[in-house]
Amino acid sequence: MLTESMEDYLEMIYRLIQEKGYVRAVDLAGALNVQPSSVTRMIQKLHEEGFIQYEKYRHIALTDKGKRLGYFLVWRDAMLKEFLTLLNARVGVEEQVEGIEHYITPPTMCLFRNLVQYFRTHPECLEELQAMNRLNKYPEG
Amino acid sequence: MLTESMEDYLEMIYRLIQEKGYVRAVDLAGALNVQPSSVTRMIQKLHEEGFIQYEKYRHIALTDKGKRLGYFLVWRDAMLKEFLTLLNARVGVEEQVEGIEHYITPPTMCLFRNLVQYFRTHPECLEELQAMNRLNKYPEG
Ligand SMILES: [Mn+2]
Ligand SMILES: [Mn+2]
Repeated sequence: MLTESMEDYLEMIYRLIQEKGYVRAVDLAGALNVQPSSVTRMIQKLHEEGFIQYEKYRHIALTDKGKRLGYFLVWRDAMLKEFLTLLNARVGVEEQVEGIEHYITPPTMCLFRNLVQYFRTHPECLEELQAMNRLNKYPEG
Repeated sequence: MLTESMEDYLEMIYRLIQEKGYVRAVDLAGALNVQPSSVTRMIQKLHEEGFIQYEKYRHIALTDKGKRLGYFLVWRDAMLKEFLTLLNARVGVEEQVEGIEHYITPPTMCLFRNLVQYFRTHPECLEELQAMNRLNKYPEG
């Protein structure tokens, strides 16, 4: 299993390749706001685990395995944000998702995706749920 | 803000006091499967933060602040497990909740509580959602 940090790196590599077509160690350091030395170490690890192809001074490329996992990580992040936003969470959505995402397995993500789909296709149910959210604000209330 | 580990300790202190009426450092070490020296350090920190009363060789007691937070932590844990179980998550519920709980704020817990309440009071909606869960198993499917 990957560490939280490895997942965050792989997610960002996937994102940057999608945006710019390529990614260099220096772009990654900037995007994740970390030291170049940390990037070097992490690239080495992700390479050893078979997620990226990498030669010194060249661009970083994802292997097929890296592409599949990167796609899932970006999707998981977006789906959890969509879920919390749909429920009307207004504060700290980003921070909460950054923390919880690493613990949520693919089968459980499937349940979240279905929940979002259920409420998108049943707006009257969503309206009723949101009315509850407006009334009952405190957890124990 | 408390660390994940501080939250787990406080949750367990609350739980043990509820079960047995009291808690000693040695009970905590056993319940959390950690070294007594770790318990000593953590008790000191929780004492400094005003969550527990503690004198050496005496039982650990919760302050009012500690009781309020402990109650919330036990409730959050149980509610997240109820939520995932309601959605038919079958595998790894405990592990996922252990990880995600620390990142979920009281207002967001309120939304989860309302979701559970919504589906408990609308069994026909729950049935429809669960039918979706039976059909769409893979996240991207
Ligand atoms: Mn993250
Ligand atoms: Mn935990």
